[in-house]
Amino acid sequence: MTDFNTLLDRLALTAVKVGLNIEKGQEVIVSAPIETAPLVRLIAKHAYANGASLVTPFFNDDATTLARYENASEESFDTAATWLAEGIGKAYKSGAARLGITGGNPCLLQGQNPEHISRVSKAASIAYRPAMEAITRLETNWTIIGAATQDWATQVFPDLSPEKALSKLWDGIFKASRVDNEDPIQAWAEHNAAIHKSAKKLNDQRFDALHFTGNGSDLTVGLADGHHWAGGAAKTAKGRMCNANLPTEEVFTTPHMNGVNGTIRNAKPLFHQGSIIDGMEVTFKDGKIIKAHAEKGNDVFQRLIATDAGACRLGEVALVPHSSPISASGILYRNTLFDENASSHLALGQSYSKCMLDTDNITQEELASRGANSSIIHVDWMVGSPETDVDGIKDGKVTPVMRKGEWV
Amino acid sequence: MTDFNTLLDRLALTAVKVGLNIEKGQEVIVSAPIETAPLVRLIAKHAYANGASLVTPFFNDDATTLARYENASEESFDTAATWLAEGIGKAYKSGAARLGITGGNPCLLQGQNPEHISRVSKAASIAYRPAMEAITRLETNWTIIGAATQDWATQVFPDLSPEKALSKLWDGIFKASRVDNEDPIQAWAEHNAAIHKSAKKLNDQRFDALHFTGNGSDLTVGLADGHHWAGGAAKTAKGRMCNANLPTEEVFTTPHMNGVNGTIRNAKPLFHQGSIIDGMEVTFKDGKIIKAHAEKGNDVFQRLIATDAGACRLGEVALVPHSSPISASGILYRNTLFDENASSHLALGQSYSKCMLDTDNITQEELASRGANSSIIHVDWMVGSPETDVDGIKDGKVTPVMRKGEWV
Repeated sequence: MTDFNTLLDRLALTAVKVGLNIEKGQEVIVSAPIETAPLVRLIAKHAYANGASLVTPFFNDDATTLARYENASEESFDTAATWLAEGIGKAYKSGAARLGITGGNPCLLQGQNPEHISRVSKAASIAYRPAMEAITRLETNWTIIGAATQDWATQVFPDLSPEKALSKLWDGIFKASRVDNEDPIQAWAEHNAAIHKSAKKLNDQRFDALHFTGNGSDLTVGLADGHHWAGGAAKTAKGRMCNANLPTEEVFTTPHMNGVNGTIRNAKPLFHQGSIIDGMEVTFKDGKIIKAHAEKGNDVFQRLIATDAGACRLGEVALVPHSSPISASGILYRNTLFDENASSHLALGQSYSKCMLDTDNITQEELASRGANSSIIHVDWMVGSPETDVDGIKDGKVTPVMRKGEWV
Repeated sequence: MTDFNTLLDRLALTAVKVGLNIEKGQEVIVSAPIETAPLVRLIAKHAYANGASLVTPFFNDDATTLARYENASEESFDTAATWLAEGIGKAYKSGAARLGITGGNPCLLQGQNPEHISRVSKAASIAYRPAMEAITRLETNWTIIGAATQDWATQVFPDLSPEKALSKLWDGIFKASRVDNEDPIQAWAEHNAAIHKSAKKLNDQRFDALHFTGNGSDLTVGLADGHHWAGGAAKTAKGRMCNANLPTEEVFTTPHMNGVNGTIRNAKPLFHQGSIIDGMEVTFKDGKIIKAHAEKGNDVFQRLIATDAGACRLGEVALVPHSSPISASGILYRNTLFDENASSHLALGQSYSKCMLDTDNITQEELASRGANSSIIHVDWMVGSPETDVDGIKDGKVTPVMRKGEWV
């Protein structure tokens, strides 16, 4: 069995070469949980060795985040570091790559005031909007990878000792990120080719809408005019291929913001910014949520969909077969990067311009007129179960796409 | 004996209440070695509890810094995160407080290419100049405190076990920062009053120049026109008292950039950005260094004084009695925050406007015409020894100020 340090080094190399596909002379901005510093050091090593001009790590610390909710005065919760968000946005626009590491405590904010959580999240979303636009428009190469931390591991494997839980979570991450392969770069080339093939099939079919049934759902998701199915490695505005998520198993496109109708239930809980939301039942009419309830975390959920005008409409629909490796592992990761790649999902909020055709020099108004939603949030929630059937609809004709969660 | 956690909490509280004297609604930007996260969490707690709107910690990581020198390509070494420096400068100017924690490996960059060190340092100094101007002009409240890390402790106490070295360095920091007192806030009020008294005496004397002799030195330091002796708590442009250094034992003022003549030797080694410089002998003529040599780290030293036009002139002269508590501890901290408060010192580079009278709405040109130096660097080096005598000169009359390193 390959030892831990070799696997960690491979994950770092894969993030730099496959995730970012870093360009010589590029700056790299890394955000990471403080506990994952050993991985960040290996990423810095590989980034510099592959031509990075500067690696700037931002370490986030769950305990410092929590200290705010526990000690700050009421006025604090509408404050965001706008000066920092602007700087980061400027860096992306002038060519810096973004490497995010996810892995904090999935339930950090359980028990905190949902109103405070919502206000903090909204203030940050507004501040980071210009930076996030550069990301959703793929103006620069970016990637998000996972790294295990103790708080996270203990929640995923509550019955194991802390050491065993951590080790088992790392194993899952290494496997899902395909660095258990001797040559992960080759493994990713093959995997990207397979995803591109699935996306091409859907692009050739050019459905008007998808129809989800099973698991208590009956939802029609109209697709945007000139939508494009993407997945796996994608090309930035500057022509650089990058893998925005490691792992990734999904193919995804842009729903029509006014064309979603029916009701859908979630299939896995959503761990969103330190809170858990589960038992969701959501009804759409003409694209907009008209009824929504969550058995768990309903307060956070209601505030989330009320963030702005686009937060109660869809920005992404993604298909993932139930037999995908992450799903087959049987692990509920309690982290969207992993769980969304184990289940077909929808995202509330902002759409991706790479999931639309002919977007060169297009205005926001033109995108909207073709059905692409816009919002300061983009939150994926998992709806695909082993019971889920998906049909494609074109000119009234119904074509089976998935049956019992698997590609037809 | 007070337990470690109590002392650490007191250090955090003292940094927030005495160092920053934080204002309700202020943002706080913290920079800290990653190993000092437990202290940062306590600082966040006290900052929020005392009204901070947002605490943004930047954790710096020696190993990531080193990865650059070991792996980056030649072009990397002129790059700085200008977008981040601009953002931080903007935050200071709009009222954010700055809390720096020093404590990294004093010799991190030993063995690295001095040219690379110099280029990195210069690029960062240029990028951070606007931010540093807000600091040197005391536009906002700021403080720097020390926190022990293992790499630092092992170098200060090489003969002790790692655990004992770390514990002994913490003891020294707690004592020097006066948090071994039950009520450090009261202790700092008394200490500030004593420093203000020493500064007042020098301000009343209004010397034209200081004359340093002993320890192989014979240097006359002319003082700037309308210089002002400062020390201890100082008032920001917005009228907020803060202690920019914890610990602090010095009184200091602005030399005349064209009025320094003679030769001086250093009394303690200088640990500057990961390099050691020692055995310095420096000759000034009309304010400018005309001859300089260091027995150790001469290459780094020569590059330092060649950084820009102001780097080979003085921006600060500071007096510290040899019997000050930090000096009396007998510890060579290998860190300027502590060593400069154990010895009279000079600083190459930028002057402080708080050490000049009548600076409201003054231009940089007017400050320069009165003798205040300007540069992208500000580097203190220790010249005060138990052999050092200092005389004040006014209208040709000589008044003893220090004998054998002690106030007369």
